[in-house]
Amino acid sequence: MRISELSRRSGVPIATIKYYLREGLLPQGHATAANQADYSEQHLRRLRLVRALVGVRGLSVSAAKEVLDRASEHASDMHQMLGLVLGAWPVGKADAEPVREAVAEVDELLETAGWKVTEDAPAKQAIAESLVTLRSLGMDIDWHTLLPYAELARRTAVVDLDQLQDADDPLERAERALLLTVLLEPVLLALRRLAQEDESARRHGV
Amino acid sequence: MRISELSRRSGVPIATIKYYLREGLLPQGHATAANQADYSEQHLRRLRLVRALVGVRGLSVSAAKEVLDRASEHASDMHQMLGLVLGAWPVGKADAEPVREAVAEVDELLETAGWKVTEDAPAKQAIAESLVTLRSLGMDIDWHTLLPYAELARRTAVVDLDQLQDADDPLERAERALLLTVLLEPVLLALRRLAQEDESARRHGV
Repeated sequence: MRISELSRRSGVPIATIKYYLREGLLPQGHATAANQADYSEQHLRRLRLVRALVGVRGLSVSAAKEVLDRASEHASDMHQMLGLVLGAWPVGKADAEPVREAVAEVDELLETAGWKVTEDAPAKQAIAESLVTLRSLGMDIDWHTLLPYAELARRTAVVDLDQLQDADDPLERAERALLLTVLLEPVLLALRRLAQEDESARRHGV
Repeated sequence: MRISELSRRSGVPIATIKYYLREGLLPQGHATAANQADYSEQHLRRLRLVRALVGVRGLSVSAAKEVLDRASEHASDMHQMLGLVLGAWPVGKADAEPVREAVAEVDELLETAGWKVTEDAPAKQAIAESLVTLRSLGMDIDWHTLLPYAELARRTAVVDLDQLQDADDPLERAERALLLTVLLEPVLLALRRLAQEDESARRHGV
């Protein structure tokens, strides 16, 4: 397809596509004339992934390029690749003593749940910080409180991974993993609020 | 307790407490001397709730006052009260045709799941907007895709509501509902990411 069609199908302006081409985020198309190139479905997928990394996950263009370069090296290793595209996490603010203690609790939770995750996964830090915040607000909460939530999160992850099974192309898979993970977050939170309303109505006999 | 202890136990500066007192967000203490007042555990709880509404849910002081006034009127009706403190939701951007169509899909989802929720619940709009965004990025997704997530959200809500059972005081309940709902959100999302990593490792035999 021509660059105009690539733009139309991806929703990315031509000027932005040209910028990505110059920066090496998108491989050059197949030259068909002095000033014309042909782009494949592969280009379209890669472009969507770039847009998801930059627009959805908020990476800079150079950070997105680094992730994509590393992901290409590991394209055959789905687990590695998912880790790369999903990997980054807003860096936590605090590294204070209470947070370190809470990280140890999160490790206990993970061990009890039987999960194997990266030792320094940023999500662990995020959970620890929320525990500290909730306690500072007077909530009586520890890792035992989180166990039933962890069990439900594991079932959610099973549904997530099932959704990725039918994509053959590794780039498409990586893109879907990213979109499903990040863009479904507000959906899952909204579903929880609606379910709370319904459950509250049932319990209080409305 | 004196205002200094109220400040220490709540973590809210004395100047801020005095501001809340002036604005009527916090009822006056019991006067013990010309320039001294005594505050109760009730004041402490109310103060925490104010801080949660302003700091966690991001309400303005006047909006928090309105929510609290209305919540006090309905303090005996737990369902009403939860609705009030949890109610507001960031207002959606788009009201375009695709979003309206997606809202109709969300209604179909809710009917299938058998949930009874407010007709114009902002969470419905949030789900509809995410559906539209996901589709614009080329994802093949509709309300059927969301059914298993809805089932897990309902179980999450059951765990949420169970956590609130042991609080007797209506203000404490409202505060816990708010903190649990809003502050557990990053925890639930972090648990999902960790579970995805673990599930991905299992499936790809790492």
